[in-house]
Amino acid sequence: MDIKTTTTAVPAPDIVRCAYMEIVVTDLAKSREFYVDLLGLHVTYEDETAIYLRSFEEFIHHNLVLRKGPVAAVAAFSYRVKSPAEVDAAEAYFKELGCRTERRTEGFVRGIGDSVRVEDPLGFPYEFFYDVEHVERLHQRYDLYSAGELVRLDHFNQVTTDVPRGREYLEGLGFRVSEDIQDSDGVTYAAWMHRKQTVHDTALTGGDGPRMHHVAFATHEKHNIIQICDKMGALRISDRIERGPGRHGVSNAFYLYILDPDDHRIEIYTQDYYTGDPDNPVITWDVHDNQRRDWWGNAVVPSWYTEASLVLDLDGNPQEVKIREDKSEMAVTVGADGFSYTRAPGDALQGDPGEEVGFKMGHQL
Amino acid sequence: MDIKTTTTAVPAPDIVRCAYMEIVVTDLAKSREFYVDLLGLHVTYEDETAIYLRSFEEFIHHNLVLRKGPVAAVAAFSYRVKSPAEVDAAEAYFKELGCRTERRTEGFVRGIGDSVRVEDPLGFPYEFFYDVEHVERLHQRYDLYSAGELVRLDHFNQVTTDVPRGREYLEGLGFRVSEDIQDSDGVTYAAWMHRKQTVHDTALTGGDGPRMHHVAFATHEKHNIIQICDKMGALRISDRIERGPGRHGVSNAFYLYILDPDDHRIEIYTQDYYTGDPDNPVITWDVHDNQRRDWWGNAVVPSWYTEASLVLDLDGNPQEVKIREDKSEMAVTVGADGFSYTRAPGDALQGDPGEEVGFKMGHQL
Amino acid sequence: MDIKTTTTAVPAPDIVRCAYMEIVVTDLAKSREFYVDLLGLHVTYEDETAIYLRSFEEFIHHNLVLRKGPVAAVAAFSYRVKSPAEVDAAEAYFKELGCRTERRTEGFVRGIGDSVRVEDPLGFPYEFFYDVEHVERLHQRYDLYSAGELVRLDHFNQVTTDVPRGREYLEGLGFRVSEDIQDSDGVTYAAWMHRKQTVHDTALTGGDGPRMHHVAFATHEKHNIIQICDKMGALRISDRIERGPGRHGVSNAFYLYILDPDDHRIEIYTQDYYTGDPDNPVITWDVHDNQRRDWWGNAVVPSWYTEASLVLDLDGNPQEVKIREDKSEMAVTVGADGFSYTRAPGDALQGDPGEEVGFKMGHQL
Amino acid sequence: MDIKTTTTAVPAPDIVRCAYMEIVVTDLAKSREFYVDLLGLHVTYEDETAIYLRSFEEFIHHNLVLRKGPVAAVAAFSYRVKSPAEVDAAEAYFKELGCRTERRTEGFVRGIGDSVRVEDPLGFPYEFFYDVEHVERLHQRYDLYSAGELVRLDHFNQVTTDVPRGREYLEGLGFRVSEDIQDSDGVTYAAWMHRKQTVHDTALTGGDGPRMHHVAFATHEKHNIIQICDKMGALRISDRIERGPGRHGVSNAFYLYILDPDDHRIEIYTQDYYTGDPDNPVITWDVHDNQRRDWWGNAVVPSWYTEASLVLDLDGNPQEVKIREDKSEMAVTVGADGFSYTRAPGDALQGDPGEEVGFKMGHQL
Repeated sequence: MDIKTTTTAVPAPDIVRCAYMEIVVTDLAKSREFYVDLLGLHVTYEDETAIYLRSFEEFIHHNLVLRKGPVAAVAAFSYRVKSPAEVDAAEAYFKELGCRTERRTEGFVRGIGDSVRVEDPLGFPYEFFYDVEHVERLHQRYDLYSAGELVRLDHFNQVTTDVPRGREYLEGLGFRVSEDIQDSDGVTYAAWMHRKQTVHDTALTGGDGPRMHHVAFATHEKHNIIQICDKMGALRISDRIERGPGRHGVSNAFYLYILDPDDHRIEIYTQDYYTGDPDNPVITWDVHDNQRRDWWGNAVVPSWYTEASLVLDLDGNPQEVKIREDKSEMAVTVGADGFSYTRAPGDALQGDPGEEVGFKMGHQL
Repeated sequence: MDIKTTTTAVPAPDIVRCAYMEIVVTDLAKSREFYVDLLGLHVTYEDETAIYLRSFEEFIHHNLVLRKGPVAAVAAFSYRVKSPAEVDAAEAYFKELGCRTERRTEGFVRGIGDSVRVEDPLGFPYEFFYDVEHVERLHQRYDLYSAGELVRLDHFNQVTTDVPRGREYLEGLGFRVSEDIQDSDGVTYAAWMHRKQTVHDTALTGGDGPRMHHVAFATHEKHNIIQICDKMGALRISDRIERGPGRHGVSNAFYLYILDPDDHRIEIYTQDYYTGDPDNPVITWDVHDNQRRDWWGNAVVPSWYTEASLVLDLDGNPQEVKIREDKSEMAVTVGADGFSYTRAPGDALQGDPGEEVGFKMGHQL
Repeated sequence: MDIKTTTTAVPAPDIVRCAYMEIVVTDLAKSREFYVDLLGLHVTYEDETAIYLRSFEEFIHHNLVLRKGPVAAVAAFSYRVKSPAEVDAAEAYFKELGCRTERRTEGFVRGIGDSVRVEDPLGFPYEFFYDVEHVERLHQRYDLYSAGELVRLDHFNQVTTDVPRGREYLEGLGFRVSEDIQDSDGVTYAAWMHRKQTVHDTALTGGDGPRMHHVAFATHEKHNIIQICDKMGALRISDRIERGPGRHGVSNAFYLYILDPDDHRIEIYTQDYYTGDPDNPVITWDVHDNQRRDWWGNAVVPSWYTEASLVLDLDGNPQEVKIREDKSEMAVTVGADGFSYTRAPGDALQGDPGEEVGFKMGHQL
Repeated sequence: MDIKTTTTAVPAPDIVRCAYMEIVVTDLAKSREFYVDLLGLHVTYEDETAIYLRSFEEFIHHNLVLRKGPVAAVAAFSYRVKSPAEVDAAEAYFKELGCRTERRTEGFVRGIGDSVRVEDPLGFPYEFFYDVEHVERLHQRYDLYSAGELVRLDHFNQVTTDVPRGREYLEGLGFRVSEDIQDSDGVTYAAWMHRKQTVHDTALTGGDGPRMHHVAFATHEKHNIIQICDKMGALRISDRIERGPGRHGVSNAFYLYILDPDDHRIEIYTQDYYTGDPDNPVITWDVHDNQRRDWWGNAVVPSWYTEASLVLDLDGNPQEVKIREDKSEMAVTVGADGFSYTRAPGDALQGDPGEEVGFKMGHQL
């Protein structure tokens, strides 16, 4: 492949934030039940082929597009850039990388103007736009506020075979790493990368890819997330709660993972921290630290490591999924060949340095 | 055995509520770290052999006595009765049942006056008292209020081999059932029983017994429980979080189970419901309902079913643990021979009656 | 007056709890907007003349009846008793007191069976019943759970001219005092009285009466109350927020007072404490303590002291309102002739005993 | 005055965020009690003349410096810039404006390196720095997490006589307006301005100035703020709660204002919204809208409008306070000559366009 991951020949576009995801769903009515009736996202527009949804505090046209199609997949990871000129910059940048690009001045979806979509070096359909229709920001419409209200789009999460390569590409594109997971052999298992002043706009998870791991929405408080679980229990769809709720080690956020009718994974997320300073300290976690993925040491279910959504190329066909050749986080941490610790040997917070590290065996599979 | 479980020959004592538990711990300093430094219970009195602890809103001398001893166990499940005369009533009642009793007018522990202890028909050391020293109720001492503050003793939970027999005994003693777990063969796996106007003062869990399953303290809100998890993560003792946090099906409370240094299990619990009406509806759960123990369908770890604390007889020796002969809840719900469902066939809340029941396979062991 | 407040000639009925209030509203549609659309109470039944509402965790037919009528007033303060026979007991008790009573075996309102209504010694329309239709307890219907969900009826509050006389009457009826407000001259300004194991089922507020001061519903957590305020802001009816939110000194609960379209006052209330022990300590507050009504010292608005709802006699006519002759709490605490302190002279928590007491002048009217 | 408010001759420095405030306090021990014992800020360093404090999630040396001195005042409003070179840019910029500046390569306070302080065009002591000592970020030290934990410095608030002039100056310096308060005559009463992606890094409040109105710290959730009130009640210092808690109209945040021992005003603040997009919609509030300052229409106490802290010049002497000549927000909204409305005439959310606007009279002074 003659696609580069970085270039200094042309400047990277100035990205503001992750703005929306376009996903293909196979049954629009069932998806509407999930995203509107269960999760309470607000409909900006809908017709027989698509539903445009936004979160409580959003003022741009949408944060999520559900488009009816034959195969469940992700059509676009879309970022907002700082000005109209930055769309040109994005197009030039990806052309210079050798990527396929498509420019549409009238936009690819309703509500969004001049945009460029690209098949990025990792195989993901990325979009960049500035022009967008403003809609009512509902942030004080507490008459519409549900007990599990989703207030912001927070981030994307992408599965890729080679995390260091992906990280290099995203750093070239102007993202900065906030946290990552490594082992003592120097293998990187995952990395969190941001443009806005939160822990991430997107993260890279090592695995067979390109695939979409999840898209995350933020709530105001922790009880809002608990309510979503309680409601799924009341609706007798608790089998669609995949993992959590819990506290992340990485990012420090309170989280929940649930599955939509097409098995697209949605994270509900709240209370990470400010990362806007240029020298924001990067946190590296040991892959064997049992609190990295869940601060309380609760087990990560296997499906969370193995399952993810297909992504589409610019013709709307699923990208081929390549197998990760590096070590798998699941394999090195659970089961007969893996291990995790609760207390690292010599941990400063531990009263007794000679005490054995704690294995949370009851929770291991 | 010529011990009866019920009698109408003498009236049952009028019990107000579960009041305190006396537990034997093997290392008082380590237990103090757990109950005082981690959980923030308030010390009413302590010396080299025992620590007396109370919760934020308590006005009696203590809710928990930690006594140093050679074998971790429970020395007393103590209930407050309505008047001094009811201590006499308790003594007479258990004598009539054929149980061993011991009366001490000066009390068995500091702060408590005239009391009777009994070896009850199920083999548990029960205590009944009225006289008690009043201490400062801290309920408005917000200067002492920690982020994970425990505000009330809520209930006990006991493991017994024969739940229907235990239930009959406790109903005779004046307890009323709020909820239970059964199967279609009529086997009862657990029952929740109350005197005060909450879901329970004690519960019976089917298993090898007599053993103490857990003692539970209440918080004001759900975030207080999350803070306890977060703090255990910060202290790198997340391996002492056994199960949760989660929402119970039974009782509807938000919960967490953690283990003290002797593996005594502590539940942190909040927001069950009022049960004070005489015809409070009893809820019976199907043992195969995957939401009965956790409303979100999260797996119960095996240790939660199998591990429990020894209880002492009136001489301070551990009671012999007898094996449950009825079916085990763990065996019938998990593993190759068990099953659980998320949606019962024909569930009213389910749009599509023909849809298959949902198994939460990823979470099963 | 030849109506007694107490009697030992016949036993008092065994009251379980405050169960529902029947109020007359002048515009049923507007009241529905307030209680159903704004507050989210659940409709058990409605027709053109009345709406029957219940809270989230209730299993009896209703906690509130809105009945259309010409004059806004309260038709009944209704208590549940422990058995059918206790309705007879109630009838006999009030007859013995010399009160007018009316018995209807088919009940006065839908859903309730055999009941007695009385014009009590203070002039209030009290009702006692046992028979009641059970309805679905919604306590796990989180699909219906709103962000400001009201989960239980908590208490009534009644304005009466002579609080000590009212207290004597209610103690005779089996209520126990949890807290009160007095001054050093021995004047009692208010008293809180309970049957269930909370701070009150009803309270007496000194003032011109008989009038209904408020009826209170409980939420699970404090944020639920804040949401009700936020929603009233969003609906631009913040002028219907009369007082709060705040933390009570008395009862220690987090509270809010709002006004319905007929100016009936509704309190939203959460997190008082357990009072079920027979020797539950009574707390007496000094009327000049600026934290008694609001723990944060925020001012009580004058309308809260002066305004209240009429109550009806058994013919449906408003009871005459008599003027309080004792000192008024408002007069002795605010304005030129009143005073309040933040720190009592010699308060133990105060580092500097010589320091002046703190007046919260900015908040005084 | 030959000091300009803007210049295009030299570029403005690239400011990241408000970083810390240095305040002069008259009794260091009393201030320590307030900021450390009551509010739980974390001590990075302290000696007999100063205390350096930081919030839970901060990684730079401090967010607040308390310096012992003879007159309570503010010594510096300090901003972090994007790189060392931006300190040069700041110095050049303010010199070009004609302002007095002082550069210290070793910093003015402990933990901070090369800095420039200026007497800005409004008379405030502004500081700009990049170099700073990193300290432990406590964001996962839940073992140190108090019930009212302050997690971030959020913003400053400054009183100035001429808000439009101040706004012009701050916009020149690179700040962007998120919200403001105006009247139909075009008078601007206040403006909120940000660099980081929140509603503000600083705000301008119209009044006699230059003075410091308040400095604000953020909590995670609303209950954390309520706990601070509850604790102040428990400590019998509720007279130091000046205003709130409440929900702001402007910014949509949940808030509380309290006073330190020198009457420096501290705001506790949580849950405003994301403002990072270049076209973030500006919200203009009508000064007569009763929900602008408190979404629930609760009254603003007069002291909040009139009282503020002195600020120092670069010699450490208090700046002269000039009288505002424009209309006062307090005068136009309360009292005989002012007015406020709950519902604007013709408000879209109002069912009945003919309905009178709602005055919240009970809460007006």
